[in-house]
This record gives sequence, structure tokens and C-alpha cells, in this order.
Amino acid sequence: MYEFKTQVRVRYADADPMNVVYYGNYAQYFEVGRVESLRALGISYKLIEDLGIMLPVVELNVKYLRPARYDDLLTITSQIKQLPVDHRIIFDQEIHNEEGKLLTIGTVKLYFMDKLLGKKACMPPILAEKLSSYFS
Amino acid sequence: MYEFKTQVRVRYADADPMNVVYYGNYAQYFEVGRVESLRALGISYKLIEDLGIMLPVVELNVKYLRPARYDDLLTITSQIKQLPVDHRIIFDQEIHNEEGKLLTIGTVKLYFMDKLLGKKACMPPILAEKLSSYFS
Amino acid sequence: MYEFKTQVRVRYADADPMNVVYYGNYAQYFEVGRVESLRALGISYKLIEDLGIMLPVVELNVKYLRPARYDDLLTITSQIKQLPVDHRIIFDQEIHNEEGKLLTIGTVKLYFMDKLLGKKACMPPILAEKLSSYFS
Amino acid sequence: MYEFKTQVRVRYADADPMNVVYYGNYAQYFEVGRVESLRALGISYKLIEDLGIMLPVVELNVKYLRPARYDDLLTITSQIKQLPVDHRIIFDQEIHNEEGKLLTIGTVKLYFMDKLLGKKACMPPILAEKLSSYFS
Repeated sequence: MYEFKTQVRVRYADADPMNVVYYGNYAQYFEVGRVESLRALGISYKLIEDLGIMLPVVELNVKYLRPARYDDLLTITSQIKQLPVDHRIIFDQEIHNEEGKLLTIGTVKLYFMDKLLGKKACMPPILAEKLSSYFS
Repeated sequence: MYEFKTQVRVRYADADPMNVVYYGNYAQYFEVGRVESLRALGISYKLIEDLGIMLPVVELNVKYLRPARYDDLLTITSQIKQLPVDHRIIFDQEIHNEEGKLLTIGTVKLYFMDKLLGKKACMPPILAEKLSSYFS
Repeated sequence: MYEFKTQVRVRYADADPMNVVYYGNYAQYFEVGRVESLRALGISYKLIEDLGIMLPVVELNVKYLRPARYDDLLTITSQIKQLPVDHRIIFDQEIHNEEGKLLTIGTVKLYFMDKLLGKKACMPPILAEKLSSYFS
Repeated sequence: MYEFKTQVRVRYADADPMNVVYYGNYAQYFEVGRVESLRALGISYKLIEDLGIMLPVVELNVKYLRPARYDDLLTITSQIKQLPVDHRIIFDQEIHNEEGKLLTIGTVKLYFMDKLLGKKACMPPILAEKLSSYFS
């Protein structure tokens, strides 16, 4: 399993009139978590795109347990539990607040897609190499 | 079953560098669908809030089948398949493009919450009355 | 002068914990106003992009007089006061609420840019033709 | 003069189909700059709100010189050039990319407002005290 934690601060624009983070905005937090988990491996998502591979999200599942509020410093945990063997990659993600309370649980499934061909692709070797050392 | 359809036009800000709607932005489209489906019943979500009831989303599940693109005119279908009998209400939602292609499938679970007490509540009678005529 | 009015409904995600529309979100409303003002001329902004011309915003000035709130139905007035003669086009925009109160005044300057060359361009002839009939 | 610098990473959701940051999203970056400049003084904007003072933006002026792109690490410079003497506070803000290029210049005027009374207010003493040491 590969796991990485990163943090985001809730912006004023992220919170709604209930004074809680709008349910759709967690998608951005999850994305920050995924992108930084790749960067920690030495691979930027931008590099993957430059290699001609896109990673569209094909499925998103979120459970909202407790609200996040304006100015909260959130910790995003991103896990890859299975080494991708085909065009699919799944991230399990959790968000905790500063008190360590679990706020949100998300599962995000993405496809590796060849940008030019518009077809499903395999995980880029550069990512496979870095990631495989966590699955033995 | 209660069903309602409404439309949204994809804004430039909604689309990302892949030139498709960012996966998190569908949450706003689904919300527009839910809010307009209530308005069509003669009840604004704002009124429900003024009655002291909030409707936080507790669960979101989305399948992204085909991308929506800038300037697409999308049709959002919102269904309530079961008359709420406790604090839960579930919306089944679909988004189609102008060619009638199914782009996105969403399920959104919300809780009726008493704003002052911060506790689960029942569906407001004014909504129950309007909605029950669709379930007989 | 060319003038066009269109409407947007304030979404829950647009409003912040002060229960007013977040100051940055008016940029989207202004954009809807500009895009619909072009569509009313028979020209979609998407078509202009397909012709190889982009319209990046180079200057934005906004005065916030009164707040817009969740579920408000806003009227966006978009004016082109001068027929563009070079690479610049300026939109004067106002937002009123349902009671007719003036909420926001904006001025947005954009450049016509050749997408391939990355250089300033002239207004596309198809737009010049439609627009010129309003300036005589 | 009081000046503070902070950084934000451009998110995928922030960039539009031109692959540049959407013009309205700089408002969030400017806000992060202001909020962090206050935090560096030992004052959270949240605390100011808890003291009953809101800070709505009443004027925004932005010049977009060069585009920011996905994954850029931006430096936001926030300056308070004049110590507020009434209900107004003005932030001069600039955004540079990693190569040190100036991308965006913004000026944001905000009002101190009493939340309960809905009236203009003075700068909270706790902020005045911290800030005044930079203006002598």
C-alpha cells in the first residue's frame, strides 16, 4: 500500500451559508491529496499529462461524517491500496481536522487515458516503477 | 415517484484544461436539479431553511460516463423514488447532453436537520404534503 | 451601443458564510452575461474559439454596492459601448436583483488573441458584422 | 507599510480550457494572501469575525499581465500601504510565478462592518495595535 498525507486550509470561498464546506468542494481537496501523493513519489501529474496520459475521474463516492469549517486546517490522507494492473487506479481518501476527527471519506476511481488516441491506456512506466516498490 | 427535469449551461469556469467539466462541479449541477425540483413543487429550498431545517448532504455517489464540455446545454433529471419516512431523503440524478447521451449518474443522500437543535429532523410537513401526492 | 440582459439564479455554492455571494463569483455571472449577449447576436463564444480566436480577460474592475444572496434571481446587463477597432473589447456590466436594486458594477476588458500565433488579433469579421449594426 | 508573501499551488479546477487560471479564481488567491498576511500578524480573520466584525470586499481591480497555469507555484504579495483610519482597508496585491514573472496585479478595498448592527465599523483595536507598529 502507498499512503501520503498533505494539508489544505479551508478558504472562505469553500464554505457555504451553513458555514460548512460545500459538499462539492471536497473534490478539490481530494485532488490536492492525489496530486501531492504523486509529487511525493517524484512524479507531477503535469508530467503524466505531458507524457500524453490523462487521468479522468470515472467514479466518486463520498461520505460526509462531520462538517469542515472556514479556516480549518485539514489533513488529507490518500491511499493506493492496490497496484494498478490495467487502466484503472483507485485512491482511498480521508479528511481529518486538527482535532483528529474524521470528517470525510472518499473513494475516487480514475482511468489512464491516451490523450491522442482517446483510448484507455496502461499506467505510465515511470509511475509503475515508483509505485511498485510499495507493493511487494 | 417524483421526477423533475431542468437545464444548465456549462460555464467556461466549469471546464478544466482537459476541456471537460471538472468532476467536482457536477455537485453544483445536481444541486440545481434538486433545488428546481423542489421549486416545481411550490417549495423553495430557501423556505425550508427559513423554517429552521437544513439539508446537508451526507453521501454522494457519481459515475462519470461521458464528458460534458464548455457551452453544452445539460438536462438534469432528479428523481425521488421513495417518500421520506424519517430524516433521510435520497435524490437519484442523471445528466444528459443535447444529443440525449447520458453523461453522469449521481445519487445524493441528505438529512433533514434542525438548525437550532443541530439534530436530525423529520421532513417538513409542507414538503411532505406536496410530495406525498406522487406516492400513492 | 449594444446591450443585452440575461438572468442567473444564485446557487448555494456561490454564497459564503456571510450568506452573500462570494466576491470572486461575480466573475462567472459577468461571463454568463457576456456569453449570452454574444449568443443573442447569433454568435457563440465557442464558435469564436473554433475560429482560432481566444478572448482572455486582461482587466477586471468591480464595485460591490449591495450583496446578492442565495436563491436571488439576478439580472445581468451587458453593454458594449464602443465598437472595437483593434484587439480590445470592453464590456460594461451591471447586476440587479429582483427588486431592481443595483448590486454590482463591473467593467471587463478582453483581448482578441490568435490561438495559434499567441498574438493579439482583430475582432473576427463575423462578430464585427453583427455588432456594427448597433453603432452607426 | 506592511507586506507579507505567501504561496498557493494552482489546482486543476482553477484552470480553464485555455489551460490558464480562470480570471475569477484570482479572487481566491488574493483572499489567501490577505488572510495569511493577517495570520502572520498573529490575527486570524476568523477571530475578527468572532469579534463581530465582517470584512466584505467593496471594490476589486485586477490587471492580468501573464497567465498562471496548472500546477504553477504562485507567490502572492499582499501590502497594506496606509494604516486604516476609518472603516476602509486597502490591500495591494501581486502574484508572481516561480520564474519571478509578475502575472497579476490586484487592488482590493474592504470595509470593516459591524455584523450585528450591519453598519460600518472601525478597525478592531487588536488589529490596529499589531498593524500600527509598521507605520511610524
